[in-house]
Amino acid sequence: LIKTLLYEGKAKKVYAIEGHENNGKVFIEFKNSLTAFNALKKGEFEGKGEINRDIATFIFKFLESKKVKTHWVKDIGSNSMVTHQLQIIPLEVVVRNTLAGSTAKKFGRNEGSELVRPLVEFYYKNDALEDPLVTEDQADILGFCDLETMSYLKTQALKINALLVGLFQKAKLHLVDFKVEFGKNSNNEVLLADEISPDCCRLWDLETKEKMDKDRFRRDLGHVKEVYVEVLNRLKKLKEEINE
Amino acid sequence: LIKTLLYEGKAKKVYAIEGHENNGKVFIEFKNSLTAFNALKKGEFEGKGEINRDIATFIFKFLESKKVKTHWVKDIGSNSMVTHQLQIIPLEVVVRNTLAGSTAKKFGRNEGSELVRPLVEFYYKNDALEDPLVTEDQADILGFCDLETMSYLKTQALKINALLVGLFQKAKLHLVDFKVEFGKNSNNEVLLADEISPDCCRLWDLETKEKMDKDRFRRDLGHVKEVYVEVLNRLKKLKEEINE
Repeated sequence: LIKTLLYEGKAKKVYAIEGHENNGKVFIEFKNSLTAFNALKKGEFEGKGEINRDIATFIFKFLESKKVKTHWVKDIGSNSMVTHQLQIIPLEVVVRNTLAGSTAKKFGRNEGSELVRPLVEFYYKNDALEDPLVTEDQADILGFCDLETMSYLKTQALKINALLVGLFQKAKLHLVDFKVEFGKNSNNEVLLADEISPDCCRLWDLETKEKMDKDRFRRDLGHVKEVYVEVLNRLKKLKEEINE
Repeated sequence: LIKTLLYEGKAKKVYAIEGHENNGKVFIEFKNSLTAFNALKKGEFEGKGEINRDIATFIFKFLESKKVKTHWVKDIGSNSMVTHQLQIIPLEVVVRNTLAGSTAKKFGRNEGSELVRPLVEFYYKNDALEDPLVTEDQADILGFCDLETMSYLKTQALKINALLVGLFQKAKLHLVDFKVEFGKNSNNEVLLADEISPDCCRLWDLETKEKMDKDRFRRDLGHVKEVYVEVLNRLKKLKEEINE
């Protein structure tokens, strides 16, 4: 497999794959690094790339079985996957079931406040501008994404949320919120991209309320690796959820 | 006229008026003070209350003549007006024709960038939280304002914008952006509230591009009073715009 680095992100490397049969596909390697606060805080742990790849794959396969189109094609090695190559839409799509993090703080609400319905938010993907919150009219008028596509992203994000809330509930985890990204393939179809893992979800243990996600790293709560492993293990026990 | 202070804002005082015939109405006094950056910067100039009252009245009468319902009832004295008493909706509604100020900065765009269509933004009116930008879904879910009312606010804000762009153009001014507030009367009708003046508009001279608004105070450009007076004088020359 001959590959050329296309892009290195905070937690992943994306490579082009040489050879005809891989046209339109890329190779994604999950790194062991952890970052927070727009990469002002950095860390890593051994095996993180493998764990996140396995969690992401589990979730992509689950979502595909529920008719949600994702970029996942197949796993390779211990910490990589082959995916469809997409033109990423420059919006981070956040879904919240319970208030936590930046939105709770911004509106002076307590972390853990319940919402009357799931909230979808868009953030403009731009590190230099610190990924600002963007309204649909702003995103449309400033040319980040058109209103029709955003309406589809919202529908997809809410569908993914409903599926994942159910999945995690079976794993005794409350899905507080998560961030996803989408991209367009060469046929202009919108697919779920990036990854879904404890790096970009908030997961609270249903009984103990313990945080089982990157907030352990952000807030120096310790046992970061242990909870990532625990999330993976709980998901693995739900194999029957995936109609393979 | 016996009045009781109900509320003192940064640029206005609102009084209840005693007596049967004034039920449902309040008395608004325009102060000489100027503030910027969530009141971190403070100033004032003699006669500002009178000038802003006159500009606001001119605009309210103009909008009423175009079938836009406002809270204005009549002027009193040199710096005050009687208005309908409203339950203010806690959203600042901003309309932008050209990018300037916070939104230009937030998205790394140059001040003066033209927009493909007017942009409407909502900010949650809360000084302690520094009036954060709020999406329609956030405002609805967090209980600030329902989606149907926001849709009406947007329509009204765009209608007001179209009317004011035309009005100011006749006064040789470009309406860059403005902020308005709305409130509900006892019949649950939504009326335009607060004021429209150089305190809450960006106005650029059509020919010289000179700033004719509160940015002169915000950015220490000098001649603050002179431009407020000039805006009022240019509007006064357009008396025929108001179908009295």
